[in-house]
Amino acid sequence: MTELLSIILAAGEGTRMRSATPKVLHQVGGLSIVGHVVNAAIAAGSSRVAVVTGPGHDAVRKMVNGFAPDVQFFEQTERKGTAHAAGMARPLWQDAEGYVAVVYGDHPLLRGVNFDAVLSRLADGFDAAILGFEPKDPTGYGRFITDGDRLLAIREHKDASEAERAIGLCNACILTFKAEVFRELIDRVKPNNAQKEFYVTDLVQLANEAGYKVGYGVAPEQDVMGVNDRAQLARAEAQFQELRRDDFMRAGVTLKDPSTVYFSYDTEIGRDVTIFPNVVFGPGVKIADGVEIRAFCDIENTSIGAGASIGPFARMRGNADIGPNVHVGNFVEVKNSVIHEGVKAGHLAYLGDSEVGARTNIGAGTITCNYDGVNKSKTSIGADAFIGSNSSLVAPVSIGDGAYIASGSVITHNVEPDALAIGRARQENKAGYAPKLKARAEAIKRARAGK
Amino acid sequence: MTELLSIILAAGEGTRMRSATPKVLHQVGGLSIVGHVVNAAIAAGSSRVAVVTGPGHDAVRKMVNGFAPDVQFFEQTERKGTAHAAGMARPLWQDAEGYVAVVYGDHPLLRGVNFDAVLSRLADGFDAAILGFEPKDPTGYGRFITDGDRLLAIREHKDASEAERAIGLCNACILTFKAEVFRELIDRVKPNNAQKEFYVTDLVQLANEAGYKVGYGVAPEQDVMGVNDRAQLARAEAQFQELRRDDFMRAGVTLKDPSTVYFSYDTEIGRDVTIFPNVVFGPGVKIADGVEIRAFCDIENTSIGAGASIGPFARMRGNADIGPNVHVGNFVEVKNSVIHEGVKAGHLAYLGDSEVGARTNIGAGTITCNYDGVNKSKTSIGADAFIGSNSSLVAPVSIGDGAYIASGSVITHNVEPDALAIGRARQENKAGYAPKLKARAEAIKRARAGK
Amino acid sequence: MTELLSIILAAGEGTRMRSATPKVLHQVGGLSIVGHVVNAAIAAGSSRVAVVTGPGHDAVRKMVNGFAPDVQFFEQTERKGTAHAAGMARPLWQDAEGYVAVVYGDHPLLRGVNFDAVLSRLADGFDAAILGFEPKDPTGYGRFITDGDRLLAIREHKDASEAERAIGLCNACILTFKAEVFRELIDRVKPNNAQKEFYVTDLVQLANEAGYKVGYGVAPEQDVMGVNDRAQLARAEAQFQELRRDDFMRAGVTLKDPSTVYFSYDTEIGRDVTIFPNVVFGPGVKIADGVEIRAFCDIENTSIGAGASIGPFARMRGNADIGPNVHVGNFVEVKNSVIHEGVKAGHLAYLGDSEVGARTNIGAGTITCNYDGVNKSKTSIGADAFIGSNSSLVAPVSIGDGAYIASGSVITHNVEPDALAIGRARQENKAGYAPKLKARAEAIKRARAGK
Repeated sequence: MTELLSIILAAGEGTRMRSATPKVLHQVGGLSIVGHVVNAAIAAGSSRVAVVTGPGHDAVRKMVNGFAPDVQFFEQTERKGTAHAAGMARPLWQDAEGYVAVVYGDHPLLRGVNFDAVLSRLADGFDAAILGFEPKDPTGYGRFITDGDRLLAIREHKDASEAERAIGLCNACILTFKAEVFRELIDRVKPNNAQKEFYVTDLVQLANEAGYKVGYGVAPEQDVMGVNDRAQLARAEAQFQELRRDDFMRAGVTLKDPSTVYFSYDTEIGRDVTIFPNVVFGPGVKIADGVEIRAFCDIENTSIGAGASIGPFARMRGNADIGPNVHVGNFVEVKNSVIHEGVKAGHLAYLGDSEVGARTNIGAGTITCNYDGVNKSKTSIGADAFIGSNSSLVAPVSIGDGAYIASGSVITHNVEPDALAIGRARQENKAGYAPKLKARAEAIKRARAGK
Repeated sequence: MTELLSIILAAGEGTRMRSATPKVLHQVGGLSIVGHVVNAAIAAGSSRVAVVTGPGHDAVRKMVNGFAPDVQFFEQTERKGTAHAAGMARPLWQDAEGYVAVVYGDHPLLRGVNFDAVLSRLADGFDAAILGFEPKDPTGYGRFITDGDRLLAIREHKDASEAERAIGLCNACILTFKAEVFRELIDRVKPNNAQKEFYVTDLVQLANEAGYKVGYGVAPEQDVMGVNDRAQLARAEAQFQELRRDDFMRAGVTLKDPSTVYFSYDTEIGRDVTIFPNVVFGPGVKIADGVEIRAFCDIENTSIGAGASIGPFARMRGNADIGPNVHVGNFVEVKNSVIHEGVKAGHLAYLGDSEVGARTNIGAGTITCNYDGVNKSKTSIGADAFIGSNSSLVAPVSIGDGAYIASGSVITHNVEPDALAIGRARQENKAGYAPKLKARAEAIKRARAGK
Repeated sequence: MTELLSIILAAGEGTRMRSATPKVLHQVGGLSIVGHVVNAAIAAGSSRVAVVTGPGHDAVRKMVNGFAPDVQFFEQTERKGTAHAAGMARPLWQDAEGYVAVVYGDHPLLRGVNFDAVLSRLADGFDAAILGFEPKDPTGYGRFITDGDRLLAIREHKDASEAERAIGLCNACILTFKAEVFRELIDRVKPNNAQKEFYVTDLVQLANEAGYKVGYGVAPEQDVMGVNDRAQLARAEAQFQELRRDDFMRAGVTLKDPSTVYFSYDTEIGRDVTIFPNVVFGPGVKIADGVEIRAFCDIENTSIGAGASIGPFARMRGNADIGPNVHVGNFVEVKNSVIHEGVKAGHLAYLGDSEVGARTNIGAGTITCNYDGVNKSKTSIGADAFIGSNSSLVAPVSIGDGAYIASGSVITHNVEPDALAIGRARQENKAGYAPKLKARAEAIKRARAGK
């Protein structure tokens, strides 16, 4: 396969976002916009990827290198247009072989297959190939001036004649070139426009003038949706979610109300999983077959074993590992814990930094006290244990297999297997005392009111 | 009224569901698809109902007999078509009088009134009558070949001529016959098709050939929506919910955002009830007048008395009986409990297997410890009692009228009326000790980091 | 500016609401319908506002005077039509100068700008000016009979000819007059109709007959939507929400799924705030810049400082004041509390009637025991304190800066700064006792089963 270098243009300020965060770091499906574009470039087979960022946009580098450490970064300190931005990556493209793709970084629904639509034209012998699409409303987009399968120029909307404005095929967001053609032409781009900027789209006409053959591919509009403001960001998110919901239903997942279930870019779900309304999946969720997820769950960085029953109102995060046939019920949070097969934690509990052995019962109101203000420590609970309701397990602490913790206990010392541990005060009843308490409280009330 | 025997065909595998569960057991509005069809058949006045299931589909019988114990089951061990399936119920129809209806079992929105559309034709003197509908897109459906009010044949889509494909009226899901006509013709059906299957729709042409008069009725498309995959299941659920939402609003229920409230097939709601966004009703919910349900509630098998105030974030289930003017607040779960008039349980509590007397206050964090690992036991609380916050009530335990439980107590013994019960340790303060604790924790942190 | 008196007609029974509550008290965006109309009248510059209510509708007065104490109320004891209702406010308009506006009280989306559309006509020299709109379906509305910029009459739908019914411009909900013209004509209205009612719309023809010049303005249909049943109420709510969502997105707020976030009429949100799906804002919420609100939060009467991180599953209400960079996590309720900068309350806690100093850590399961059955009392916690998990803080109680509360403690006495407080029982382990407990429980189970 021919080598491919992708240069992703991510330097835009995005002022219409009205945000202190660079536009391309806003998220769709739990991943930044530029993250989606980088993933698309990698999926398309790019052997090298460069991202051109705006000045001071170090956070972009940090985010992308977090999941794609080989991506290289170049800063465009002056805002002088897309060709100028692509020029910033010169250290990479100056010795590139094969193909060079210039890709706009603000198109979060872009996929590898959209690259194929133009790369295939290069493979057919074209010297350059540009991705187009047919927007419902082409106002504002650059029009494709074509002759058969050849693209002669991209005419900016404001420079287009009436006849040219009637053209439906417009510039999308990927321009591909044979590497030597790109190198030959990129420095010839001139700032012949009101903004005095260097436009990468001018390469089309330059290539034609130099006798090169420029072709084009076409993408579905939904794949090449750009994001410039919060409303478009919301629409991109909606489009992303709709695609994932359809994918999962086709794969055999029941979504009671698909429009209320939110997936991340990396969510994985097995067969015969039922998901009730109002479930939010953050990044890092993997669900095995036969799981049922009730309404109102918020789950991220969690794997869930086969046949588990989750929610309603369950919260799982921070590398939670939920075993097969586990039940995590309402108002229960599981964080950074390994919960083994068949555990029941049905009501109002917090399991943090813990390991819970198979078949153990976690009573309502159980709290792992995992933090002492400085350190986080671990709670280990064995198999077949019984943790009585409203217990506090003060970590670090270890509770053996088959142990029994009496309800309402505070457990600060380890408990041996099969031992009973009890840490609560003895009850004292004072007959007839409640009315006296009430009378005293009412006297206080009167006194307060008198103040 | 003429006797009616309904034979429900529920043997389909439903491979497009990609599920290990039989298709007709997937649910709409909290009831299985076939359950809806059985209910429609009963609502239409069927004196006997038969369901023909696929091999090994015992779960279908169990589900249906759970709410309709008189329904009889027949297994179709070989998949030889709809007429063959109807034939399985021979023990029932061989001596049937009156009318016989053959009904497809995968149409969850079917209602009794849809039967009337064809039964009325039989009452008018027709020998058979078939239910049709006019789908937006008739592709794939059998077309009705009619002559005035008579139905001559049902032509399968693939066998239809260009002219026949232009017909808009198509086969829905109910075929009705005079019992003696059905008996005479059912064994004459031949497997004259590529699949070598026996089609019940062939009865139409056979009846005409035998000189019988076949009529038809028409149903709205939304009533006769079949379910073959998860996307259709989601659409049926959406349609079901939309109908129920409209019904309830017409009856005087305020739904702040109707599209986010989910009803079950059996939900009952009084007048002047206000429901905030994002409320899920499972089966078995009955709500009296004047109740307010705030956002994010999940309620099933619960009755709620007049003027109660529920949520947000309330969870009620397992035969919860909530009295008038009760308040159940955020992060509170009530299970299998009788909560009498005017009780307040406002915050983070679990009331399981309990009875709470009128006007009693349940403090934040109260937990009924109803399970000891083997048995579930009952907590009885009297009227006008006060349960201090963060108390643990270890069942079986009984707390008298007017009793007062001090906050943070673990209650293991009964408390007499008007008694004060206290079961907590005495507080000890160690002056200046906190910085020492912190220093120690930081030393541990350094030691851990050094490892 | 010319003085303006607005008379709001709010006497309708609203029988189609099927409600015991007066129609105009049903809410949109957390404010009653008539509250929205009063606000619009005030925004339009009314110096005096009168509301005409139905008999016994004292709750309307109470609600409106709660936020607009200067509004005056008049009761229409007999239901004799809109002109008769306007007549009830005679004590106000009999000496009015400037302009008089008669406004229908059941139009919750009305805004000040809609008044301008007709008041500007009066300023242009017209003697009266009526607000019209062009409904998608004009059936049922009074048609505007116009001649150029003059309005000659309003023809009721049932009295209109075929040609008049083809008119698209219809009566909306504001009629304005020069005060002296209103005074002259109002008593001339006659009950010339089947209902024997006095219609305020008859003033148009009367004014023309008296030689006055009547003009009209036009409002967008969405602004002048009336509410007569629960379905229309739900549509008004949906319309209200859509407008607010668009406003906030334009102002730089990220809404992951705009359709699932619910605002109140008075919600205020800063820049770069991110709101996940399924968040409900009741009245009285103010959010500073850079706040993140995760899914499933229910927030009312709360202010949130810059950079705070809220939810998922957070509940805040009753004058909660959340400082900058505070974290309020899952299943946490904050009520009537001041939470200072940098506090973390991450899991299953109730903070009621409290003050928490900067940087203090609130452990999972912490409960402020603020109610003793009679009085609500305050919990004061200093800065840099550590409240161990599952603690009960029994108010009134005060905990000093830097103090440390051991996990599982019940705190009933004040704690000095830097002190350690511990109030929990000592743990006792009984080796090998758990199997005995289990055996005993199983014996009980057998005995129960034997009963």
